[in-house]
Amino acid sequence: MKNNEGILLVLSGPSGAGKGTICKRLQKEIPIEYSVSATTRAPRVGEVHGKDYFFLNKETFEKKIRENEFLEWARVYDNYYGTPIDYVQGVLAQGKDCILEIDPQGAKQVKKKKPDAVYVFILPPSMQEQERRLTQRGTEKMYEIEKRISSAQEEISALEYYDYVVVNDEVSKAVEKVKAIIIAEKCKVQRHHCYL
Amino acid sequence: MKNNEGILLVLSGPSGAGKGTICKRLQKEIPIEYSVSATTRAPRVGEVHGKDYFFLNKETFEKKIRENEFLEWARVYDNYYGTPIDYVQGVLAQGKDCILEIDPQGAKQVKKKKPDAVYVFILPPSMQEQERRLTQRGTEKMYEIEKRISSAQEEISALEYYDYVVVNDEVSKAVEKVKAIIIAEKCKVQRHHCYL
Repeated sequence: MKNNEGILLVLSGPSGAGKGTICKRLQKEIPIEYSVSATTRAPRVGEVHGKDYFFLNKETFEKKIRENEFLEWARVYDNYYGTPIDYVQGVLAQGKDCILEIDPQGAKQVKKKKPDAVYVFILPPSMQEQERRLTQRGTEKMYEIEKRISSAQEEISALEYYDYVVVNDEVSKAVEKVKAIIIAEKCKVQRHHCYL
Repeated sequence: MKNNEGILLVLSGPSGAGKGTICKRLQKEIPIEYSVSATTRAPRVGEVHGKDYFFLNKETFEKKIRENEFLEWARVYDNYYGTPIDYVQGVLAQGKDCILEIDPQGAKQVKKKKPDAVYVFILPPSMQEQERRLTQRGTEKMYEIEKRISSAQEEISALEYYDYVVVNDEVSKAVEKVKAIIIAEKCKVQRHHCYL
């Protein structure tokens, strides 16, 4: 953790907790970079390399895995997804803060490589509320939703690896809390080596 | 640290750093109780027992010292000053946050009895600026000022005992930072035992 380095904010939590919405709001309201993921899946119409994703072929991706160039990665069916270390480090080295929105399994991988990042767990106000949100989204099939809810309980048990928990009962309040966390983290004594 | 307990915010720093001003502003802007000190000095005109100070006689104060009833105490010339534990605990138990404005020697004592309090060090933007502030205040003699400045360097070396450092280059910004620290502290995973 260097004094002039930006903060890596790892925003995680169960599906349907609303972490995506919080991330989008944060990006609008404060200067923070969004970590761009790498993937081997084909670009969709309108997606831009280096903005939406870094589109890599399978060989390049696997080479990067071997060379330890991802903060985390996962294989979903036939495609790889991952967070390139060099991109994140580049942002932080410029003194900019970087946000990484990721599922708890990914966050656990990141924690091993970046223990000094700030880990925020977004929690839906209740499991019932979470179910409602997932159903409302309307993009997933019922069996997917049920699978997600049962795994959510498991994910919450991973809370101990996190620094902060933000209950997303109201998006604007949750966003204010995450902003406060960033401000507070910048005040941490460990980030002020120059005085020690 | 209980889930429903208020936060004890220990605000410290060298003389002239502006901690008094920050405290007053915080009390106006957010619901936070100010820790009331005990003293053996005589009340001044208008001072109210239980509001400005708890005015105790010497015997009572010394008994409380022996019975370990102060978070910290000090003898200044012929008078005692101290922070009664029961007052602070009472405030916290009601779920209210409590602010304790104190010099670094006192904060060090408090740290031993309340390691889970939140320790914020207010730092003047520069030693030069601090000298100007102390001189402007006009309430201290020159030799007092010099003594304070030389001890300030020493006090800053105590920074490692603190959680946060807030550079008071602009009061309103410093106040916002302290408010963010309180919000962030309430989001700490350790304060959410119910999920663990």
